[in-house]
Amino acid sequence: MSWNRKHLLDIQSLTADEIMTVLDTARAFKAVGERAIKKVPALRGKTVVNLFVEPSTRTRISFELAAQRLTADVINFNSEASSLKKGETLKDTARNLEALNADIIVMRHNASGAPHFLARFLRASVVNAGDGAHEHPTQALLDAFTVREKKGKIAGLNVTILGDILYSRVARSNIWALTKLGANVTLCGPATLVPKVFEQMGCRVTYNVEEAIAGADIINLLRIQHERQRKTMFPSIGEYASLFGLTQARLARAKPDALIMHPGPINRGVEIDSQIADSGRSVILDQVTNGLAVRMAVLFLINGGKGPQEVAA
Amino acid sequence: MSWNRKHLLDIQSLTADEIMTVLDTARAFKAVGERAIKKVPALRGKTVVNLFVEPSTRTRISFELAAQRLTADVINFNSEASSLKKGETLKDTARNLEALNADIIVMRHNASGAPHFLARFLRASVVNAGDGAHEHPTQALLDAFTVREKKGKIAGLNVTILGDILYSRVARSNIWALTKLGANVTLCGPATLVPKVFEQMGCRVTYNVEEAIAGADIINLLRIQHERQRKTMFPSIGEYASLFGLTQARLARAKPDALIMHPGPINRGVEIDSQIADSGRSVILDQVTNGLAVRMAVLFLINGGKGPQEVAA
Amino acid sequence: MSWNRKHLLDIQSLTADEIMTVLDTARAFKAVGERAIKKVPALRGKTVVNLFVEPSTRTRISFELAAQRLTADVINFNSEASSLKKGETLKDTARNLEALNADIIVMRHNASGAPHFLARFLRASVVNAGDGAHEHPTQALLDAFTVREKKGKIAGLNVTILGDILYSRVARSNIWALTKLGANVTLCGPATLVPKVFEQMGCRVTYNVEEAIAGADIINLLRIQHERQRKTMFPSIGEYASLFGLTQARLARAKPDALIMHPGPINRGVEIDSQIADSGRSVILDQVTNGLAVRMAVLFLINGGKGPQEVAA
Repeated sequence: MSWNRKHLLDIQSLTADEIMTVLDTARAFKAVGERAIKKVPALRGKTVVNLFVEPSTRTRISFELAAQRLTADVINFNSEASSLKKGETLKDTARNLEALNADIIVMRHNASGAPHFLARFLRASVVNAGDGAHEHPTQALLDAFTVREKKGKIAGLNVTILGDILYSRVARSNIWALTKLGANVTLCGPATLVPKVFEQMGCRVTYNVEEAIAGADIINLLRIQHERQRKTMFPSIGEYASLFGLTQARLARAKPDALIMHPGPINRGVEIDSQIADSGRSVILDQVTNGLAVRMAVLFLINGGKGPQEVAA
Repeated sequence: MSWNRKHLLDIQSLTADEIMTVLDTARAFKAVGERAIKKVPALRGKTVVNLFVEPSTRTRISFELAAQRLTADVINFNSEASSLKKGETLKDTARNLEALNADIIVMRHNASGAPHFLARFLRASVVNAGDGAHEHPTQALLDAFTVREKKGKIAGLNVTILGDILYSRVARSNIWALTKLGANVTLCGPATLVPKVFEQMGCRVTYNVEEAIAGADIINLLRIQHERQRKTMFPSIGEYASLFGLTQARLARAKPDALIMHPGPINRGVEIDSQIADSGRSVILDQVTNGLAVRMAVLFLINGGKGPQEVAA
Repeated sequence: MSWNRKHLLDIQSLTADEIMTVLDTARAFKAVGERAIKKVPALRGKTVVNLFVEPSTRTRISFELAAQRLTADVINFNSEASSLKKGETLKDTARNLEALNADIIVMRHNASGAPHFLARFLRASVVNAGDGAHEHPTQALLDAFTVREKKGKIAGLNVTILGDILYSRVARSNIWALTKLGANVTLCGPATLVPKVFEQMGCRVTYNVEEAIAGADIINLLRIQHERQRKTMFPSIGEYASLFGLTQARLARAKPDALIMHPGPINRGVEIDSQIADSGRSVILDQVTNGLAVRMAVLFLINGGKGPQEVAA
């Protein structure tokens, strides 16, 4: 199946086939990252703008390197000292970037739907690098890539997502991707952060962490964002760690070959026991490596690439 | 006429022929920006340093992309965390950058004359990217480029510049460029911000906005810098908008094919009516696109390029 | 002698032969910096990450340009808005950067030993760009390069280092390099900042500036870090300048062809008389130029280069 989209805005609107095309293309680019010369000329002379209105060093660097390895020119738009602070509208800022002949705008924004809004009027391609609590599609794609790489399949696996589901764009994008690809998804966390309504997305919801982990093939831990978590949602970090943190005892209930995932940065001793994070069960650093390959694939595809067969061997 | 200058410090010292050489060279580079591969190797192996002592995301990005598309290496010197904050003199900072074999230093500074000062002792080329309230030559060149592109000529056109003239380097550079190229320039704005002395530069000065706009071919609106405007200069933003903002009624007095320009970022509802900004009369985004072409031309010429005939077809 | 190290962590563990290999390789790269096209493809497709936890525009730019001129891809990791601020450990941050297939991590950190810590578990190469008050090896290498270039030798020269020795990683790295290469090193400064214990490193320690300068071939002035100097260490900047600042009268006691060095940024009128800084005796800007060549050499060597014979002529 060949790719035909100009933007990557969310996982919700992708078909399972389209997701698989991204994963297959990413596999080809992962091989590029293992060469002595980690570059291909696929986007030579193209301009990628990282428009990060909400700061994120980690995701921005991953996109920046992905663009560099495709030989694109990259500009980082620093919203701190920018025209957005001078009262310019987001629409005007985006149109200005497009007027610089930008081919792709990679955008992180604290408002849900901001990239969809841009995509409606820009000629440039738009990649959603995280919009509010809505979606973070490249994270879900790299997670799916990692599951498939490690387990050989996604369909039929039991995947448990543990933590703050309500405010998590990572959770939302993962739920869409995993259910489209046939996995069984269980959500767990404090009741205030895991509303029952998520069952309508095809997930099982439980507030009992032991039950959530039992029989899991994959446990995906979300970061407790203690820097922005509302006080009213759960009593304290310590209580979260004691009630929902992944410990050896809890992990023992999962399948013997269960894998641990986390979008990073991890809080050791909060959502994850430090020994588990450093064990062979953890694929957290594989996720980082795969993220780069997935982002190369996304930039390549929305720029007109059709699929993995076009990645130079 | 071939280019022979090492620096671009201001418009005041350029001849009309030199300005036309920049515009002709920029036209060749604009075509490069419309290709699938938007790069030429003209500055390969050269180093461009963006020394922005006064922050400016927009102009910095335009110069950064211009340098990248000429295949130069680019360094952004962030004055916030820099040696300038540690008490180093500007002269020493500039000499240090030159000691890194920088070929071109693009400089924005809040002090008028700062780039002229550097040019007196540096072997590297210096481009003024805005110095205090003095000049912003590449802005005037991109404005002239846009006028010529849209109107086919500059001489004989009626150009009205509206807003804060007194503190505007954009106004000053535009007045030099337009008068050298034979346009009729009218200045208008609050009396506190448009001193009569500008008549000595060959302009008409009026405080009546309807009179200023009547018969105009081009209306160039300056940004009201409400973040740094002194309270004493005019009563309020609202009063400015009501007395000098460009509305449909006021625009009706201009020629039927009059064009609206603005250096950006625009304040919708202050100096410009939102509908006018989005109308076919507005060439604001063309200015952004042309700015990139003009900056490529300037970097190319001061690095030893002679004119448009040397830009690879 | 060919290079065989994967990291550059300090000068202390290098042999004199290894130091000379860096200097010889840097000489070859300095010639590259003087060409019209200042680039070689030695690190094409390699990724260099500048992980600057302690900000430093000057050193970061030098490493960034060095990497660019070797045709590497470069990422600047800005610690301000980063995961380190979100409670991530340094080890996790470094492993995440490595997971992006970074080949070389250039690191500045306020904790002594931080790069050695990273080097113990990373597969990527690590370059110490300054760790606390411990070492700043590329500064010592560029200083040694400059001395050899200007004097034709290092062994047997009298080198005086003047200023805050106690808190200076520049002093420590210079002492290691100079004593290994056979120079006679004298340390001088306020008694609170120059402990007698430095004599155990093979240096002469004196608190009399005239005595320290007498017969010197090289005077290396350290920056008085008035932004972080503790009040208790010396009474005032004015008193420091009067007791230890390099004046014409004091300089007269050195050899007639003595050279003045300084790692920059200089405080004119504090540690150095302004006229001396601008005189032919000063090689401060040569140090900056040579720093770039030395950093190209270091990146080249730790990436598998063997020595100067491999630098393309």
